[in-house]
Amino acid sequence: MSIDERGAVCVLGTGLIGGSVLRAAVDAGYEAFGYNRSADGAQAARLDGFDVSGDLPEVLSRAAAADALVVLAVPMPAVAPVLAEVAAYAPECALTDVVSVKGPVADAVRKQGLEARYVGGHPMAGTSESGWAATDPELFRGAVWAVGVDEGTRVEPWSRVVRLALDCGSVVVPVVAEEHDQAVARISHLPHVLAEALAAAGAGGGELALGLAAGSFRDGTRVAGTAPDLVRAICEPNAGALELVLDETIEALIAARDALRADGTLGEVVEAGYRGRSAYDSRARWEITGVTPGADGWLDELRRAGRRGGVLRAL
Amino acid sequence: MSIDERGAVCVLGTGLIGGSVLRAAVDAGYEAFGYNRSADGAQAARLDGFDVSGDLPEVLSRAAAADALVVLAVPMPAVAPVLAEVAAYAPECALTDVVSVKGPVADAVRKQGLEARYVGGHPMAGTSESGWAATDPELFRGAVWAVGVDEGTRVEPWSRVVRLALDCGSVVVPVVAEEHDQAVARISHLPHVLAEALAAAGAGGGELALGLAAGSFRDGTRVAGTAPDLVRAICEPNAGALELVLDETIEALIAARDALRADGTLGEVVEAGYRGRSAYDSRARWEITGVTPGADGWLDELRRAGRRGGVLRAL
Repeated sequence: MSIDERGAVCVLGTGLIGGSVLRAAVDAGYEAFGYNRSADGAQAARLDGFDVSGDLPEVLSRAAAADALVVLAVPMPAVAPVLAEVAAYAPECALTDVVSVKGPVADAVRKQGLEARYVGGHPMAGTSESGWAATDPELFRGAVWAVGVDEGTRVEPWSRVVRLALDCGSVVVPVVAEEHDQAVARISHLPHVLAEALAAAGAGGGELALGLAAGSFRDGTRVAGTAPDLVRAICEPNAGALELVLDETIEALIAARDALRADGTLGEVVEAGYRGRSAYDSRARWEITGVTPGADGWLDELRRAGRRGGVLRAL
Repeated sequence: MSIDERGAVCVLGTGLIGGSVLRAAVDAGYEAFGYNRSADGAQAARLDGFDVSGDLPEVLSRAAAADALVVLAVPMPAVAPVLAEVAAYAPECALTDVVSVKGPVADAVRKQGLEARYVGGHPMAGTSESGWAATDPELFRGAVWAVGVDEGTRVEPWSRVVRLALDCGSVVVPVVAEEHDQAVARISHLPHVLAEALAAAGAGGGELALGLAAGSFRDGTRVAGTAPDLVRAICEPNAGALELVLDETIEALIAARDALRADGTLGEVVEAGYRGRSAYDSRARWEITGVTPGADGWLDELRRAGRRGGVLRAL
């Protein structure tokens, strides 16, 4: 397939993220079809006119015949068994995923011997909803989609993943698995844990406290409305990186608590937080240009650009 | 003044909250005027057609002559000196405040001998903006406004404060100072501290992390965009209650971190947070009726209703 062609797309798991990829791919003109384990979910998608089946071997055989890009969109606990089926029925297909954590998925891919055709992915979008009913073809519009540039990445599957992400309306951040996982521990998994702790503390104040709660509590606890199983499936596979950033955060909170006790001030956390939020508000996404996929050093150039805030807006 | 009359309103401090009270009171048909320490702020309000002066003795003398309800809307560090002026120039006026914390304001009021005419208040509304430019007459529409029902509260100033809150579009939660301060430590001050810690942790991941940040980080750090001095002025006067809830939160985070380390799970925090957010989403504001201000036990009846999630929608 040439770098400009749009091949077929096969989405495994049509929940919020996978289902939205399927919708967005169809809207962008791809031949796209999918699999969903729950019969209800598959039927809901079919009733909306999408080609989704509950028969994984059949769907994967079709993907193999169509040389489809397989998009793994199941929660982490289901990744290994579904990859075993991919290895059995569609081992030559280009393969990506939209799971939150990249290191453990790459490990599972290697265990099945699928690494040569694999390029990790992670669209940074979502809501606290889940399931087909929550899918939205515009979910990825204007979002960031992390795409792997790990050692050994091949141009053809990489180009297909990048093209799909761009066609879904996202910009692409090139990043290696380990650095991705450290970053999302900070900006996705830690926010989940802090939202849970805040929601629990608010409810600890009873109806009076919840009745007085306004914008800061509402926004700070929004993602605590996510189903607990989903939160665990998102955060726990990144235990190592999350543990480190939790350590850092616990230390910052202990310092604030101790400063309050000692002299009635919050100490450094207020200034540090304000600087952090200001850096977030003023972050600039600059476009990476001039890198030719497959040319000498292309992966390294992309990695360095991603670290400095660069994004791809075109192939 | 009868319980149905709308007397004059004098707002001291025309920043985000005070200025919005002034605008809302004027929109509701009150004679309303104010004071602002900074000449720029006062002039900005005058240019928008509001009667705001930088001369505190003059404004308070006018309040005394008009028997105005004085609304103290300065940051906590300015409360004591402004109250000294109130005691000098308008000691007979009904007095309320819109400062975040109630115990320390009540203490400062008692030091000036103004407690007989004082009823504490706290509208649960705000943005991360500040100053006259951010004021909005609709800021309190649909919001909750905490109004004091502490021992010794008198009917006439209490009724005027409740009427003003209702006329600004809010519902009123009756609450004593200590319980208010414990509650807001949980649902307002803790959210600020966690937002600061999260923003700092995100920025610790550099441009890559901030570039990958999406909704959970954006919402979880929103209030970290508030000016640091304002965050301190809001949170630090409630040091005692905030310290206790910070202790509780640090313990919950340590338990999560230890569970991650021990067996790769987040432990209880996820379920506790989900239950807390669900309780928040399903909280019901029921209307308190049948309490006659001034009748035997009225303050106690209102306190008990407020603890159970009751609100006043009418006088």
